[in-house]
Amino acid sequence: MTEPRDLSLSLDPAYDAAGLVTAVVSDRQGALLMVAHMNAEALVATQATGEATFWSRSRGRLWKKGETSGNVLRVVEMRIDCDQDALWLIVDPAGPACHTGAQSCFYRRIEGDGLVPVA
Amino acid sequence: MTEPRDLSLSLDPAYDAAGLVTAVVSDRQGALLMVAHMNAEALVATQATGEATFWSRSRGRLWKKGETSGNVLRVVEMRIDCDQDALWLIVDPAGPACHTGAQSCFYRRIEGDGLVPVA
Repeated sequence: MTEPRDLSLSLDPAYDAAGLVTAVVSDRQGALLMVAHMNAEALVATQATGEATFWSRSRGRLWKKGETSGNVLRVVEMRIDCDQDALWLIVDPAGPACHTGAQSCFYRRIEGDGLVPVA
Repeated sequence: MTEPRDLSLSLDPAYDAAGLVTAVVSDRQGALLMVAHMNAEALVATQATGEATFWSRSRGRLWKKGETSGNVLRVVEMRIDCDQDALWLIVDPAGPACHTGAQSCFYRRIEGDGLVPVA
């Protein structure tokens, strides 16, 4: 069913019970780098600074990606999905996005019950 | 902090309290098509059929994308992220992924408080 939010030209994120939306991050080449969450404050900070800021559920605080590592994500474009509960950030990453050192958090392909690292 | 799951070569999804992981879907060109959720059963069905099947939170049941519209998503590759709570499906879509008729659910760019449809 199509709801007003699906076709609206006003930004009106459908935050969940925890005040969060999903934030999907990819680079300009279309590689998926990471998935995180944003609350309203993180969205404002991201728009204001041009660098991706999330809500860290594990730390319970705002978390600017790269605040420690320096591997910030410069936002090229932000989009929102039909029901406005997910954001898509297209970014220029300053370095590896994953805390393991991989360029992308999605560095393993699923093969049956196993995982195969992808170059 | 790097946990064993982050580096493991065994598929071991970190399902949340509702038994779900986030499933991010893009096409081969890197366009983000949609974001949905999978439980263990949806993951098995997707692997078995090669067509993306999700858990619909609104309907409370397994939902094969395209079961009504015919716009199935043929899975080219599946990856998992470092902490194994998000899946990335690279797919060949049989038609528009969005229920609004747009190719992608992310058909609007965020500009301030407004949204701009993207071709």
